[in-house]
Amino acid sequence: MPVAIVGVGKIARDEHVPAIAADPSFDLAATVSRSGGLEGVENHETLDALLQARPDIPAVSLCMPPQVRFKAARAAIAAGRHVMLEKPPGASVSEVLTLDRLARRAGVTLYASWHSRAAAGVAMAQAWLADKRLTSVRIDWKEDVRKWHPGQDWVWQPGGLGVFDPGINALSILTAILPAPVHLTEAQLSFPENRDTPIAAELTFTDGADLTVAAAFDWRQEGGEIWQIEVETDAGTLRLTEGGARLAIGDADQGVASPGEYPALYSHFASLIAQGASDVDASPLIHVADAFMLGRRIAVDPFHD
Amino acid sequence: MPVAIVGVGKIARDEHVPAIAADPSFDLAATVSRSGGLEGVENHETLDALLQARPDIPAVSLCMPPQVRFKAARAAIAAGRHVMLEKPPGASVSEVLTLDRLARRAGVTLYASWHSRAAAGVAMAQAWLADKRLTSVRIDWKEDVRKWHPGQDWVWQPGGLGVFDPGINALSILTAILPAPVHLTEAQLSFPENRDTPIAAELTFTDGADLTVAAAFDWRQEGGEIWQIEVETDAGTLRLTEGGARLAIGDADQGVASPGEYPALYSHFASLIAQGASDVDASPLIHVADAFMLGRRIAVDPFHD
Repeated sequence: MPVAIVGVGKIARDEHVPAIAADPSFDLAATVSRSGGLEGVENHETLDALLQARPDIPAVSLCMPPQVRFKAARAAIAAGRHVMLEKPPGASVSEVLTLDRLARRAGVTLYASWHSRAAAGVAMAQAWLADKRLTSVRIDWKEDVRKWHPGQDWVWQPGGLGVFDPGINALSILTAILPAPVHLTEAQLSFPENRDTPIAAELTFTDGADLTVAAAFDWRQEGGEIWQIEVETDAGTLRLTEGGARLAIGDADQGVASPGEYPALYSHFASLIAQGASDVDASPLIHVADAFMLGRRIAVDPFHD
Repeated sequence: MPVAIVGVGKIARDEHVPAIAADPSFDLAATVSRSGGLEGVENHETLDALLQARPDIPAVSLCMPPQVRFKAARAAIAAGRHVMLEKPPGASVSEVLTLDRLARRAGVTLYASWHSRAAAGVAMAQAWLADKRLTSVRIDWKEDVRKWHPGQDWVWQPGGLGVFDPGINALSILTAILPAPVHLTEAQLSFPENRDTPIAAELTFTDGADLTVAAAFDWRQEGGEIWQIEVETDAGTLRLTEGGARLAIGDADQGVASPGEYPALYSHFASLIAQGASDVDASPLIHVADAFMLGRRIAVDPFHD
């Protein structure tokens, strides 16, 4: 099936293009980019131009920053195309819920992807936790923003989410592996004096009963990233490390393996299209919005790229 | 049907107690309050004590601040009671969605009330707008916080929402009367230097096509409150004023009347219980969370009560 990539930035080049190239269901037929696209691939300056020129492309994958994703998704759905959204699926929770309704009404597939849910250890973690009694969860999600978002000014703009841009990956795993939902009770957000989004966050969640989840997100990490989730249960400790790519239960590494996150996303997108289904779970973004609403803000040192 | 009020503060005394007294379906059988309750009404220090002592009270109305509402609602639902929530229904969006699931599973009624939706002009505004083409909406929701929230420190605490505590009333009307959903695209939130919640907000919404909604919330208003929504359509202007109690279409006041907002809420609660149904629409709170997530923050003069 021909597919088009809309927004040819770092994530498209690093992940989407190779994943599509390796996928037997999809062919990369075109791109949309104002700044030129990819060597050897048909490019259109605007999504509207693509939609008009290529009615034979039934699916689009939207990789632009979240602040402009709704308009593109709406246009693609209105033109009868299946749509895959990079994370976060939008700049607001409301727009994601609206897209979900529009896609259902139009009878097309909408897939709000969460790449970290496709990390090798996540499915097994979820299955193992399903019948355990959980007592606490500790999340550490810390990386160097200069390494992972070099020059990406949009992450510092309102709607760009700041440290929640990586942090939402942890929340997408958390919401996938917990047997019951949690909600935020407290948050502290550290805003650099000169920026509109936080560089660090401390979050506390509860299930309303015995389970507490504590999360620390930080973009000021130097010397190697830490992306891990540790779950204490009545049957021992479960540890997801390396962003979910490794899973240990107690002291035993489970040796999980996967074809890679983005190949798994495209495989799921193909299967949703084949089934005429959608997959839109806004819960990670809802937790982020809750953190901004409930969070106490503190001002910290200015950040300069 | 016996009903208990949990949280005997200003809103309970001003609105809930008289509404229950006037309602043929309900009798105020008890209250829960640490600070004494009401003259001549059985009072319990805690909700747990009430739930244990009075299994014959099938319904509770939760009027405490939103930061502590979830725990109470969860306990009441677990004890098989029908629950009505003051607005906002919680301090986080996630907890409201969780309560909705818990109530459905327990087979009890959950009613997340929005009192402004029961204002006299709202139902007719919604009916009139249903087949119009809307071009713009202008919301002004401005009041003196010292008059309307005297000494209510919780509105300034994280989760207390600040000026969104009244502003969410406007959003509850907006989401009820618009024929199609909108989502936030821009917000500016004014935080007093010494407070954790905003004293003013400017919001812009879109339906993704032609409609723009502009809203101004302000708690620094002096000399009389302004609570109005003006909708421009292809068939003229619709104006809701006085918080929705008056409706004009073009120059013609529609002379709408109602039994009052809270009597209407209790009547709806009784009918939901009779039907075995719930009514939980989190969309006004989702718009507020979106505003905190997307909003640009500016610091303004400190606020002292």
